[in-house]
Formats: sequence, structure tokens, C-alpha cells
Amino acid sequence: MRIVLDAVGGDHAPVAPVAGAVEAARALGVEIVLVGPADQVQAELAQHNTTGLSISVVDAPEMIEMDEHPVQAVRRKKRSSIAVGMRLVRDGEADAFVSAGNSGAVMAGAVFVLGRIPGVERPCLATVFPALKGTITVADVGANTDSKPEYLVQWARMTSLYAQLVQGITRPRVALLANGEEDSKGDKLVQDAHALLKNSDLNFVGNAEPKDALVGDTADVIIADGFVGNLFLKGAEAVAKFAIKKIQRELSGPGVLLRALAGLVPTALLVATSKHKGRVLLASLIGGPALLGAVLAPAVVRMAKTLDYRAYGGAPLLGVNGVAIIAHGKSDPEAIANAIRRAKEMVDRGLVAAIESGVAETKNLEPRT
Amino acid sequence: MRIVLDAVGGDHAPVAPVAGAVEAARALGVEIVLVGPADQVQAELAQHNTTGLSISVVDAPEMIEMDEHPVQAVRRKKRSSIAVGMRLVRDGEADAFVSAGNSGAVMAGAVFVLGRIPGVERPCLATVFPALKGTITVADVGANTDSKPEYLVQWARMTSLYAQLVQGITRPRVALLANGEEDSKGDKLVQDAHALLKNSDLNFVGNAEPKDALVGDTADVIIADGFVGNLFLKGAEAVAKFAIKKIQRELSGPGVLLRALAGLVPTALLVATSKHKGRVLLASLIGGPALLGAVLAPAVVRMAKTLDYRAYGGAPLLGVNGVAIIAHGKSDPEAIANAIRRAKEMVDRGLVAAIESGVAETKNLEPRT
Repeated sequence: MRIVLDAVGGDHAPVAPVAGAVEAARALGVEIVLVGPADQVQAELAQHNTTGLSISVVDAPEMIEMDEHPVQAVRRKKRSSIAVGMRLVRDGEADAFVSAGNSGAVMAGAVFVLGRIPGVERPCLATVFPALKGTITVADVGANTDSKPEYLVQWARMTSLYAQLVQGITRPRVALLANGEEDSKGDKLVQDAHALLKNSDLNFVGNAEPKDALVGDTADVIIADGFVGNLFLKGAEAVAKFAIKKIQRELSGPGVLLRALAGLVPTALLVATSKHKGRVLLASLIGGPALLGAVLAPAVVRMAKTLDYRAYGGAPLLGVNGVAIIAHGKSDPEAIANAIRRAKEMVDRGLVAAIESGVAETKNLEPRT
Repeated sequence: MRIVLDAVGGDHAPVAPVAGAVEAARALGVEIVLVGPADQVQAELAQHNTTGLSISVVDAPEMIEMDEHPVQAVRRKKRSSIAVGMRLVRDGEADAFVSAGNSGAVMAGAVFVLGRIPGVERPCLATVFPALKGTITVADVGANTDSKPEYLVQWARMTSLYAQLVQGITRPRVALLANGEEDSKGDKLVQDAHALLKNSDLNFVGNAEPKDALVGDTADVIIADGFVGNLFLKGAEAVAKFAIKKIQRELSGPGVLLRALAGLVPTALLVATSKHKGRVLLASLIGGPALLGAVLAPAVVRMAKTLDYRAYGGAPLLGVNGVAIIAHGKSDPEAIANAIRRAKEMVDRGLVAAIESGVAETKNLEPRT
């Protein structure tokens, strides 16, 4: 399998993409094609030991910046990493494309170069969300705004196939993101999509509130308009960061010193009543903070990791004629490697073909108008 | 000042409302009128020491359940606590109404009984959000869906007045909730409202991402459609709860024991090399966990408190002809007392009159069509 990686996409390019490519090539045994300005990418690649790995470089000298207008940039810059990479996939020279670059440009590139799967009205961006129980796949998280109810139904179908084939969930439960479980909740779009999904062959379970997306015991797939879904994703990320910052602040303020002193009272009493004050004092002064550090720091780090969406392998664009994954702009090498792993799974499980036949079957079932 | 409290609204009614009323009457020196089935409310009130407090009961024997259709319920049940309470405010027998009951019914009751302030197209529900720096007021958080851009502009005006008069912020910075700061972000509604706000006399600072709502250094007032705002609020609440659950789980799993043992290694070494093993061991076994408990437990509790929206005094309904506040359905006595405090502030600062003249002035400024 050959996966194209945008070597110049993301805030930490080319360092992070190249390091992630090396990591993925070693761990997954896939071939990686790095696209970007060849000399720059080769220089970065030379920093790594690539013995036994299949990593090649294809030149793409033009750069698309994060603040460029996505559609115009992709149309104009035919020799950008995104345009060059997508053509490799379209022409069958590679199986998948991964980028942490300008997400609008990657979406535009995928639609222009790979094209839509026949019957797909609008491709959608999906992302896997960590839940207390398992994972949840949410779509659309940013490819479309002001959507029609019919789009949401198609995204539900494509995302179900993704959850089934890539996440391994049998007959995924599909829900609509809403501000309440009752059928009457949501805006007009949600209510209209609700009615359509109720009459579909999908395993529709109704509305899901944000808390359902985090607990994960009521739905496996959650569908929303792209503006709403993107806002939800950014909101979750922001609150998670806020919570971590808050607890770190709580653990570093002046109040902590006072509380720590209070916590040392039992030991202080022991010291006072001991004949061997020095040794006992040393034991408590070293032992207490060591214990605190050993228990607390890993707990905060582990919470932060669960809430760190980079770990979840990027966002696949569903409905385009090829595998395309958008990784977070802040991706580190681990996040890039995870996105490559996700791309490999999508190719392995034949997701594009599954969506193609899934959408075609439904079209045939629908009454002709 | 006389404030009406719905004694039978909320998940913990009548216990929590009555206790909150007693707390508020004592702390704020306001008169409280409890509305609800008189015998039931009197019985609950008898559990408290109300010497020197001015708390009366007005009978409202009909109940509106949480799952009832709000508009129908309020129209039909003229003797419900919401209908009776709103009439007391309308007739000048009380200055404000507070309820933790069916929020749709409270909104419907406010609009039917109090009516809209002249010139207000749609009242909106505002809520105060805790930010790292100060507070943020967000509206609409659930009164309207499928809004028009003009509504958002009016909500921005009313919420600015609220932030100025009640939160004490001079010339509040107003932003639109969006998935990016660029003018091109958001759905059509956000983009159209953006254009209108840019040309208004309000202190409009552009789009705010969810993270801005939590940090609080770019905007004081954040405006959104009610479906989007409600979803944002519920999402933030859900992620906060998730983060707390996560860290509690991290601190109680089997891994913690192992890490705690690792943390005890320095002390163990001291014990092993000491002549007075017993005393040193005791010092570390007591001192470490005591320190851990003293530092950690308060940090988690304090983080949870910051993220607990009950503490923030309920959601005022802006644009109706009177002060009406919707408290969280899960309100405890403290949350009810905070909502009463908020109602008192709104009355003290003359918010209704300020909105009336603010809206009237703008109407006069607008070109006649």
C-alpha cells in the first residue's frame, strides 16, 4: 500500500509530517510518498534513519498557506502538495492522501481532483470522538454549512459505513446532534432530517445531546450540519483545555501551599513527638511530595490525553472518490502517524467501494421523481 | 423589593426552591412570594426558621410538568405557578419572577403574560458563563431557533445592556459565536448578522470561537442562534462533567495504587537505611496520603465549582416587559438563591427600562421602510 503525505501541511511542517511518516512506515510497513518542495523535504528526511523503509519524495514546489482562500488556492496552484498528492491518488499511483494543511484546500482538492462518488450530493468530514465507552464518529464537522436535510441522511449512511468498517461496530446506532432528546428539539434542519431518518433503513435512534456524544452508550454515529458540528468539536476541545488549565492553576496557586501545609500536619505532629526528628522530617518532606507527584501528574496527563483529539487519527473526508484524511493543523509526529494508520485502515477495509455501493443501492430504492 | 419564586419548579422542588428562598430572603433582605399549591408550600416552609423574614405564599394549585408542551400548558393552566407568578409581576404586585421549572413554559408565560417590550421582535435567553478572565454573557441560549439576522442584532443590543448594567462592564465587546475568527466563517445567519453588526453602533469585535468564550479576553457578550447557543452551553456542561469524571477515574483506578507505590520509593529507601524504621515508616505512610488528600481533593472540587453553571444565577429572559429568570432544572438551594440575587440586581439597575429606551432609540435611528 502506498500513502501520500503532505510534507508541508500543518503548523509543525516539515518536521512533524516527515517524522510521522518515518514512524508510520516503520510501524505499519506501508510505503510513504512525501509531497512538497523536494529539496526541503529531502533535507528533513536526511535527519532520520530510513534504512529498510520505503519513503519517496515527489516534488511539489508551490505552497498553500493556512490563510489562503482554499478553492482559489487549489485551482491556481497545480504544483502545490495538495494538488500533486491528490493527482497521485486519482491516477492510481497511491491509495490514500493525508494532510495537516489548510483543511479547506484539502477538501476542495479532494472534490476537484478525486471527484465525488456517484450519487453523493455533498462529501462530509467525519471525526472520531473519544467517549467514556468506546468511540463516537461525528459528521459533518466542517465541510458544509446551511445544509439540507437530505445531505444529513446521506452523511448518516456514509458515516455508518465508516463506523462499521473502520471502527468495527455492527449496525451502528445513528443519532442527530440536538439540544434535547425529544423529537421536537433542534432547529428546522434537525427536525426535517429527523423525519427522514426515522423512515430510513438506518439504525436511527433519535436525537443525541452533547452529553451522549461523550458518554457513548446511546449512539455510535452523530450527525450534524457542518457549522454546528465544527462548533461542537471546537467547543469540546476548548472546554477540555479550559478544564486542564483550571486544574493546573488550582494545583499551582498560593492556596495549594497552604493546603499542602495542612496536609503535612499529621507528619509534623509525628516529628514533634519523635526522638529522631531529622530522619522523620526528611521522610515526610521527601515522601509526601514524591507521592503527590507520582499520583497526580500522570492523572492530569492521562486526562489531557483522552481529551486530545490529535490522538484519534484525523478526520476522513467521506463521499469523495478516494481516501483523504485531514489531520489537525497542530499535529505532532504521533498524530500524523495515527492519521496514516487511519488511512491504511480505510483502504484495507474498502471504504470507498462500500460507500459507492451503499449510496447506489439507496438511490435505486428511492422513488423516482 | 418583592420577588416571586416558583416553589414547585425544578427537579428538587419544593425542597430546593423553598430553602433557596429562605437563604435569599435572609441574605438579600428581599421579600419572597412563593407560588405553588399552598398547603404543600406551607408545609415545606414550616421546616425552616423564617423569623424576621418576609416570605409569603400565593396559591397556585395547577402543576406544569417538565415534559408538557410549554405553550399549551401555560395557556390552559391559568392557576399554575408560572401563570400566577407572571400575573403578580404584570400587575405590579411583584418586581421579578424566578423559576427552575419547565423553561419553555416560563418563556411562553413571560411572553403571554408580561408581553414583549415595544419594538422587541423576539425575547432571548441569556446566561453568564465563567471565563478564565471574568465572565461572558451568552445569548440566545434556547429561546429561538431558525433565527433571522435582525434578531441577533437586537439580542446583541439587549445583552450588551445586561452586561453593562448587571455585570458592570463598560461598553461591552460583542462577538458572534462562530467556528473561526475570519469574517467568512459561520453559516449564512452568522455571516449576515456579522454584516449588520459591523454597521451598528454596538462595540462589535467580530467572531468569537468557543475558546474565546472560555478565556474571556476578546469579548464580553457572545451572540448565537438559540439552537446553536443552547447546544454550545450543553456541550460545555457535558465536557466539563466528562473531564471531572475522567480525572476522578484516573485517581481511583488500579494504576493509581502502582503509581502511589512508585511515589513511596524515596521514603522506602529512607526507611531501609534508618535505625528507627517504625517511626520513619509511620511518618511517610501518614504524611504522603494526607498531603495528597489536602492538595488534590480541593483542586478537583474547585475546578468542578468553576464549571458548575448553577452557581451563575440562572438565565434572564431579555426583551419581555418584566424581570424573569430561568434557573437550571437541577438547581439546589444555592443556585435558587443566586438566581434571586440576579433578579434583584436586574430590578435594582433598571434593566427593563434600559432595554425599552435602548430598543426605542435604535428604532428611531433606523430608516423607515
